[in-house]
Amino acid sequence: MSAAKVPGERTYERLLGRLAALPKQTSLTLDELRTQYDSAERAFRVDPGCVVEIVDEAPFRGECLRPGQAGEAAMLYLHGGGYVIGSPRSHRHLVADLAAATRLTGYLLDYRLAPEHPYPAARDDAVAAVRWLLDTGRTRADRLVLAGDSAGGGLVVATLVALREAGLPMPAAAICLSPWVDLSCSLPSCASNRPPDPVIDGEVLRAMAHAYLGQRSPRTPGASPLFADLRGLPPLLVQAAADEMLTDEAVELARAAAGAEVAVTLELWPRFVHVGPWYARVLDDGRRAIDHAARFVSAALELASPGRAPRLSRRLSARRR
Amino acid sequence: MSAAKVPGERTYERLLGRLAALPKQTSLTLDELRTQYDSAERAFRVDPGCVVEIVDEAPFRGECLRPGQAGEAAMLYLHGGGYVIGSPRSHRHLVADLAAATRLTGYLLDYRLAPEHPYPAARDDAVAAVRWLLDTGRTRADRLVLAGDSAGGGLVVATLVALREAGLPMPAAAICLSPWVDLSCSLPSCASNRPPDPVIDGEVLRAMAHAYLGQRSPRTPGASPLFADLRGLPPLLVQAAADEMLTDEAVELARAAAGAEVAVTLELWPRFVHVGPWYARVLDDGRRAIDHAARFVSAALELASPGRAPRLSRRLSARRR
Repeated sequence: MSAAKVPGERTYERLLGRLAALPKQTSLTLDELRTQYDSAERAFRVDPGCVVEIVDEAPFRGECLRPGQAGEAAMLYLHGGGYVIGSPRSHRHLVADLAAATRLTGYLLDYRLAPEHPYPAARDDAVAAVRWLLDTGRTRADRLVLAGDSAGGGLVVATLVALREAGLPMPAAAICLSPWVDLSCSLPSCASNRPPDPVIDGEVLRAMAHAYLGQRSPRTPGASPLFADLRGLPPLLVQAAADEMLTDEAVELARAAAGAEVAVTLELWPRFVHVGPWYARVLDDGRRAIDHAARFVSAALELASPGRAPRLSRRLSARRR
Repeated sequence: MSAAKVPGERTYERLLGRLAALPKQTSLTLDELRTQYDSAERAFRVDPGCVVEIVDEAPFRGECLRPGQAGEAAMLYLHGGGYVIGSPRSHRHLVADLAAATRLTGYLLDYRLAPEHPYPAARDDAVAAVRWLLDTGRTRADRLVLAGDSAGGGLVVATLVALREAGLPMPAAAICLSPWVDLSCSLPSCASNRPPDPVIDGEVLRAMAHAYLGQRSPRTPGASPLFADLRGLPPLLVQAAADEMLTDEAVELARAAAGAEVAVTLELWPRFVHVGPWYARVLDDGRRAIDHAARFVSAALELASPGRAPRLSRRLSARRR
């Protein structure tokens, strides 16, 4: 999905150059990794039309982001960072972009991180956040979208499974950006990491899996939902780079979801990176991937709407948006 | 993607009932199979707002379908039927639906069929059709979409590869509905056919592969483009049922395309059948899949437009369709 080259364009090559200039992740302490990730809040500013509200109302801790044209529907966003780093500071810009494109009110959860709070703390916080959104009347399940990237993308799937097991109503749709769904890191693209991923460090990834899981099996379904029973999940959009470490996780998640009768859309983007939408302000295709996510949300919310009448009477020629 | 049940709704269960009532394919002669497939022209009428013109202008033989709101862009459609059956009669309704939803002028090619005309006749006719569309000024490559189902979906990919090898310009996008891209039928979902596919008969499918290929290898890249070099292909939409015989072909085509730096979107639909959009008039999700294809075309044509300026100035909040 390349476009004509123009000066100043937000291209893949320029992004690779920026990434190569970052310090090697293995040279940083945990605190330094967290600080570096959170510096996104200075690098990528939120559009002034988006109202950001800090929320600390047990059990929800995080931020609420309202774009100018927000409707009644909401998105619970679970950030990435290997369950070890990441916060509203690292992901505010991405959630603001997604909220604006989808016209959803974004709830960005500051879930507890490992190693201080290992599995299942993150998943428990996410399930509690959904309960809070529903119980407080902030949204209804059929107007709620779950979204997340990387570890947060895996957490989206694990949370949906936990909601089903708890007998709670399913959200209308879910979005997984480069989801990490197999903490054993055993699928070919992850195990080989060839060519080396410009964003993910394999050694750091494995350390994060250990920090989250401790002595538990890396195939624990609640942490590695590729191995979970996915029946009953809502329509799922999975986006990944065509050649990142987690490409095969995206493909296999799509295959597993379809095998469990879940409607799934998989987008593989060439000349893209792990969680490309996080880089939307410096990568044009990251912006386009957000637009695709918005179209997916629009269709899924229309489909989930209880008041939706069968579209028997509309003429074919009128059916196009 | 199920909706609330209402009387008369076009559900999966009702479609399965209709399919089960059809005569067993292995009990029919070749002529009977062709006649049965072509009876779609009576079962599924074309919207009166779509102008259907018979075209017999060498090298193009087929039909041109103009929906009410057609713009300058065009779609070359390659029908399914295992390279052995199928014609404008079997697919006029589907191309009319796709043309209306996408606002493209549809060119439905009546390519030569096997066993009378084995490989590479079908591919040669498809390449000649693209040349004709471009040489006669009917469309430009960057306003052209290739689409097809089943064998026609594989033929779309094989045609794109042949266009690249001939040094011709690439179309803007391609759509493969339940594509048959491996005539060796060796991927798990195809080889096992468990549970039995309600549309495809495995024995007939293998006979069709033999009719098209004769003594050639079933892995001939020009007939089984899963084994072709896919570099340089335009953005690709692949749709399939989540549990049809060709589900794994869809997944592996997506993986192969992404590995060749092709932008690919894979949609797997539960409670769906082989080439669900062909059944759009009796299956609601077939209609929805056509709507998804239209959204894909819209985004791909915008991206391929040579006059498209980088969208640097639009505000985030204005970017949603």
